[in-house]
Amino acid sequence: LAFLERLARRLPEIGDDAAVVEPPRGPLLLSADALVEGVHADLSVTTAADFGWKALAVNVSDIAAMGGRPLHALVTVVVPPGRGADLEALYEGLLEASAVFGCPVVGGDLTAGPALTVSVSVTGTVDDGGPGPVRRSGARPGDVLWVTGPLGAAARDLQAGRAGAAHARPRPRLAEGGAARWAGATAMLDLSDGLALDLRRLAGASGVGVVVDEVPVAEGATLEQALGGGDDYELLAACPVDLPGWRRVGRCTADPGERRLAGSPLPAGGWSHSWS
Amino acid sequence: LAFLERLARRLPEIGDDAAVVEPPRGPLLLSADALVEGVHADLSVTTAADFGWKALAVNVSDIAAMGGRPLHALVTVVVPPGRGADLEALYEGLLEASAVFGCPVVGGDLTAGPALTVSVSVTGTVDDGGPGPVRRSGARPGDVLWVTGPLGAAARDLQAGRAGAAHARPRPRLAEGGAARWAGATAMLDLSDGLALDLRRLAGASGVGVVVDEVPVAEGATLEQALGGGDDYELLAACPVDLPGWRRVGRCTADPGERRLAGSPLPAGGWSHSWS
Repeated sequence: LAFLERLARRLPEIGDDAAVVEPPRGPLLLSADALVEGVHADLSVTTAADFGWKALAVNVSDIAAMGGRPLHALVTVVVPPGRGADLEALYEGLLEASAVFGCPVVGGDLTAGPALTVSVSVTGTVDDGGPGPVRRSGARPGDVLWVTGPLGAAARDLQAGRAGAAHARPRPRLAEGGAARWAGATAMLDLSDGLALDLRRLAGASGVGVVVDEVPVAEGATLEQALGGGDDYELLAACPVDLPGWRRVGRCTADPGERRLAGSPLPAGGWSHSWS
Repeated sequence: LAFLERLARRLPEIGDDAAVVEPPRGPLLLSADALVEGVHADLSVTTAADFGWKALAVNVSDIAAMGGRPLHALVTVVVPPGRGADLEALYEGLLEASAVFGCPVVGGDLTAGPALTVSVSVTGTVDDGGPGPVRRSGARPGDVLWVTGPLGAAARDLQAGRAGAAHARPRPRLAEGGAARWAGATAMLDLSDGLALDLRRLAGASGVGVVVDEVPVAEGATLEQALGGGDDYELLAACPVDLPGWRRVGRCTADPGERRLAGSPLPAGGWSHSWS
């Protein structure tokens, strides 16, 4: 209770039935993701603070993947009885991320339940006078495929049973996403579910083929981890021109059924329940 | 999986990392609430479809309590293994509510977990050229206190062990909330946690006293149920002028510590974990 009072003082807009904020001048971006302990994080390995950070970061990453910037977050938390310390740590991590990403928490809800669960919704926009939000569906044959950095670090750490920095406190690629939008990226998404699966999503949404000829693999990770591991939060983009600082992974082709990796069929990649 | 594909066809904006929608011309209203089976609903009494309806309705009610109209919803669902039928029914009820309230679902997330949990975030606005959103904090001494209808029906049904219509499919008071805003309501909130507690919230936020001299009690309900029972989703407003169709319950006074019911101290009312 004392914690809730301290929290309420840190969240000045909370108190009315709904928060009242300025509408963006550009398009309104909306995204939501939920994390459940035991499903998305093992709290004997990950701290509750890192769990809270990640809950905000995965949503901000969705805004980054549109080339946008985050505006506000709404946070609902389900907490089991007797888990006050974890709850407080979770909010601390979440509010740290909120400060770092410039995405204030303006409302939410707290309720009892059987597993620590954080559901975050974020608003965002694209209002810098540049091109509109980058969807998944605009890639064209001949576009080059790019990623923001080496892949597989989170899967490597997860399989080694340790919470590495990449996995524990992901940094959404906000600057890179905005730069790719300005550069003329035709399709973009974040690699939360692994390169192989997310390449298939981009190709399917855009109606193009994809040929991968180089995969930047994180130090100590395997190609399989780079292709199939999730939780990397790098961005994948299709763009006809160079994206400075990004790594080239392949290109889009005119055959909408083509899915190749260095001459072989592209592995299927992971399965995800996520639908946005 | 087949269900998810059918769902995806009904939710055309889902597919990108974030939904892209038009920003409102008026202020942006944001609210979020989570419902957990076994905590907010007993699914041996309530149907999963009603649970889904309610998850959206409680959020739309928060927009109604600002005098606003809903725009969009984001929905995250946690579902235990083997509960596909409940999941489908839940979405059916939620999408029915979405159609009735004019609040399309534009994104969300679906994940596994130990208890059926629905977290909904809604956006809304006030863009009809009238006064701005009605907060909790504007009531002044002399304002009359009003509610949109008789109270206690949900608590009556809950205690009788049956899911009555009021409890099962609440109808947010959107028209009444908008009318109260136009009429000059100074403070408003929805009665999701019971009249006694929500009166204390209005009085505390506004720095006024409250004197209740009549409580409209639903047929077959007790005064205690009307004062302390939640889940009614009627609105409570302070307004210096008549609100046609609303029921008068009392008035605001100049003594900020005053909390009276017909000459006696106002009961404390329920406790709620909700913080928005």
